[in-house]
Amino acid sequence: MLTRVKSAVANFMGGMMAGGSNGDHTGGSDLPLKFPYSRPEFLGLSPDEIECSADHIARPILILKETKRLPWSTGYAEVINAGKSTLNEDQACCEVLVVKRRPAGSGTPNRTPLTRRRSSLPNGEGLGLRENLDNSEDLTFHYWALFDGHAGSGAAVVASRLLHHHIALHLQEVMEILCTPNLLPPTCLGEEPINHHLTPTSQRALTRAASLRGAAGAPGSPSTPPTRFFTEKKVAHESLVIGAIENAFKDMDVQIEKEKAIYNISGGCTALVVVYLLGKLYVGNAGDSRAIIIRDREVIPMSAEFTPESERQRLQFLAYMQPHLLGNEFTHLEFPRRVQRKEVGKRMLYRDFTMSGWAYKTIEDDDLKFPLIYGEGKKARVLATIGVTRGLGDHNLKVHDSNIYIKPFLSCCPEVRVYPLAQCEHGADDVLVLGTDGLWDVLSNQEVAEAVTCFLANCDPDDQHRYTMAAQDLIMRARGVLKDRGWRISNDRLGSGDDISVYIIPLMYGNKQN
Amino acid sequence: MLTRVKSAVANFMGGMMAGGSNGDHTGGSDLPLKFPYSRPEFLGLSPDEIECSADHIARPILILKETKRLPWSTGYAEVINAGKSTLNEDQACCEVLVVKRRPAGSGTPNRTPLTRRRSSLPNGEGLGLRENLDNSEDLTFHYWALFDGHAGSGAAVVASRLLHHHIALHLQEVMEILCTPNLLPPTCLGEEPINHHLTPTSQRALTRAASLRGAAGAPGSPSTPPTRFFTEKKVAHESLVIGAIENAFKDMDVQIEKEKAIYNISGGCTALVVVYLLGKLYVGNAGDSRAIIIRDREVIPMSAEFTPESERQRLQFLAYMQPHLLGNEFTHLEFPRRVQRKEVGKRMLYRDFTMSGWAYKTIEDDDLKFPLIYGEGKKARVLATIGVTRGLGDHNLKVHDSNIYIKPFLSCCPEVRVYPLAQCEHGADDVLVLGTDGLWDVLSNQEVAEAVTCFLANCDPDDQHRYTMAAQDLIMRARGVLKDRGWRISNDRLGSGDDISVYIIPLMYGNKQN
Repeated sequence: MLTRVKSAVANFMGGMMAGGSNGDHTGGSDLPLKFPYSRPEFLGLSPDEIECSADHIARPILILKETKRLPWSTGYAEVINAGKSTLNEDQACCEVLVVKRRPAGSGTPNRTPLTRRRSSLPNGEGLGLRENLDNSEDLTFHYWALFDGHAGSGAAVVASRLLHHHIALHLQEVMEILCTPNLLPPTCLGEEPINHHLTPTSQRALTRAASLRGAAGAPGSPSTPPTRFFTEKKVAHESLVIGAIENAFKDMDVQIEKEKAIYNISGGCTALVVVYLLGKLYVGNAGDSRAIIIRDREVIPMSAEFTPESERQRLQFLAYMQPHLLGNEFTHLEFPRRVQRKEVGKRMLYRDFTMSGWAYKTIEDDDLKFPLIYGEGKKARVLATIGVTRGLGDHNLKVHDSNIYIKPFLSCCPEVRVYPLAQCEHGADDVLVLGTDGLWDVLSNQEVAEAVTCFLANCDPDDQHRYTMAAQDLIMRARGVLKDRGWRISNDRLGSGDDISVYIIPLMYGNKQN
Repeated sequence: MLTRVKSAVANFMGGMMAGGSNGDHTGGSDLPLKFPYSRPEFLGLSPDEIECSADHIARPILILKETKRLPWSTGYAEVINAGKSTLNEDQACCEVLVVKRRPAGSGTPNRTPLTRRRSSLPNGEGLGLRENLDNSEDLTFHYWALFDGHAGSGAAVVASRLLHHHIALHLQEVMEILCTPNLLPPTCLGEEPINHHLTPTSQRALTRAASLRGAAGAPGSPSTPPTRFFTEKKVAHESLVIGAIENAFKDMDVQIEKEKAIYNISGGCTALVVVYLLGKLYVGNAGDSRAIIIRDREVIPMSAEFTPESERQRLQFLAYMQPHLLGNEFTHLEFPRRVQRKEVGKRMLYRDFTMSGWAYKTIEDDDLKFPLIYGEGKKARVLATIGVTRGLGDHNLKVHDSNIYIKPFLSCCPEVRVYPLAQCEHGADDVLVLGTDGLWDVLSNQEVAEAVTCFLANCDPDDQHRYTMAAQDLIMRARGVLKDRGWRISNDRLGSGDDISVYIIPLMYGNKQN
């Protein structure tokens, strides 16, 4: 292990600041980087500090400086891997964004970002709905994100710089609707919206709309069929925010694909984002990072991991329907281990995309192909290549020594979960924890919840830096200490040798704003 | 409503006993029925009684006669619909099956059913593991099933007669493995099994197996690669039972498809089955029936419904990848309502297979096609035709007046959930409730749990008929009473006009056997 670390560090010292080395999987691209490699902007590190932070032997834990503030007193800490890649391939971003109303009368959405970023953050006060009262043209949202890169740092760096702008663009399209909570989103823009809560005002609006529709849709009028022929689904405001986050991920992925023609954007990355908007937390996840809420010492999972094992049936279904994607080298069936030629004709355990159980089948020649999904737990791989099944980038990723692309099996679509923050009461120790897989590989939800709760209980409640100290404590527990035979954590378990990044976001600030 | 009922009843009286009328959607087939239409065998009804039971106006509730017994004192009741189809298209089956070991030395599975049915049931005593001690060649399982037919009763009747035999066949293939709980199922048949619990005996077996493998896989031996090159997934016994149920559903569906060439097997059906085997309950569900466990007044859901809404993303994904299945008449996108031609160019809410939220898109000509998924709740339909997305049969079902087949969008694969019955303590009022959608359309899980718990608490605990009385009470609560304007239940809500079938299975009998 140590030899591997030493060699990686030597490699790193020579190559990192040049913006790409072999260790960074640039694949010898001559194209320029879209953004230089760096650490999260909010850490405010100098180039020297960035270089020192990448010591794969000491693995210093980086934390938010006391003088720096993230919204809601969010805590943050990170550590580099023990040598598996030259650079820390995790990235993070935290912003408060103001979406401005697009010019009146523009029927199609304006694709120029009309967001502005709050460069100095007064610790979250005065944001959100209250600010909208000051300027009803604006919509403010809070944003936290973690990206975990693989096969290079390019995609993670680009996503950390741009994904929030895509989210802002999609929110801008629906901001007028979002700011009218008592009217349901209209099915077709330009129509009268449907009444939601029958407040006296909106009831009058409904009556008006109905009488208008009645006139247009009266028997004999060919333009509008009578309303009774429609069944119309009611869509909640919340669904528009979910849709905005989903489509922003897709746009980010398309942008990476397009810009790879002119920039060197290496590898791929997972993405875990949190959007706080109008009283609700939206947690969008594409990959194997994880978000949990700790409330009153209880754990509320806010994401699920997307791995070859958790997405087996989706991937097998795709391969079954589009077998050419397997390039005649893989089989969509799963077996408990590789099938050997001498086993043809024998009966072996298998499962296909329809099954969650196992059964025996007679082995045929075709079953000797390598399985689409192979390995267990952290070692499970799709097409013998990748261990995570959702994320951004990876457009050029192929099975080693073949022309089989991995990307068709990967999804850039996040699962979005919603937490009605403003409707719940929260104490100072109730937090949302976001972590890359380096954290969760070695600590369970329960261990994290106990560590954080215990740590915060021993802090001065008025110390705004307590959430960063708690994040540092978590990283320490997951990385461990370097002993003779590697990094060790409690009970002499193996510590994580991966990059680890952690946010701890206190939830009581959401209440204060509403 | 009443007119419709009268006409249906008139139709029924003339045609039912002939084995097929227009009302039974035989489509004028000249082929013979595989099995005659009937009610569940365990009800022991005479032809006269069957005919009387089908009164769509009185809707008599049929219950298990006191003299008849199902295993574990299972309760059962049913009622016919209020006129939506001539026949009661629900079917039920309950059996205790003994799987016999297949002849020694048969390498491939014997496809002749070697099951035997226990024709007289001593109320469940002496079954299960204990019986296996008497005859170690046999494996006994308990089986309860509900089938809810549509577009004819044929598929439901056939499935109620045959599905358990398919399950028995698949269990037979693995029965020797299932009866050896301390050795994990071998990956390849004919190999040494993997040790599971390190009991002294099995530890010796493991050491032996390892030394054998070591000899064969020693460096230089070309026949077996050394063990270290394998990663091998451990498969639990439970997974074999799940796999057996899954594959039995597939085989049942294939058999229906094949036999439609020689028999008149009309329509399709949902299937909800319970298998009790070696201390565990396996609940397999394909359709919109539902199973819940009520334990200590708490509800444990044991199934989820498969409907156009719950399976939207799977169906849209399939249509996106195989657009020819939509016959150029449907779009895989979902809109909150039908798009009108005059709306082309406007922006309307939509979602595709990647989204759970909604967003706006500019309407194009293609969006004027009818949506793959349309309608809400009980009115949601796939291809404007069917409201349930998993089940058996339906091979000939097409979109009205088109050549577009529905079957590619339907899945015959059940979701199987497991409940470790023998590991839990149960009182006399802890039960598993199975019901077709007619029950759950009008009563919530909570209402059912309260009704059953309350009913059983007022029964004589030694009355073996109490579970049937509770089932009858549930049907009564869901059907309601006929008032001026139709069937009414509590709080003047509308009762279910659908066929309704209910099992109530007490769980304490599972404990008694282990």
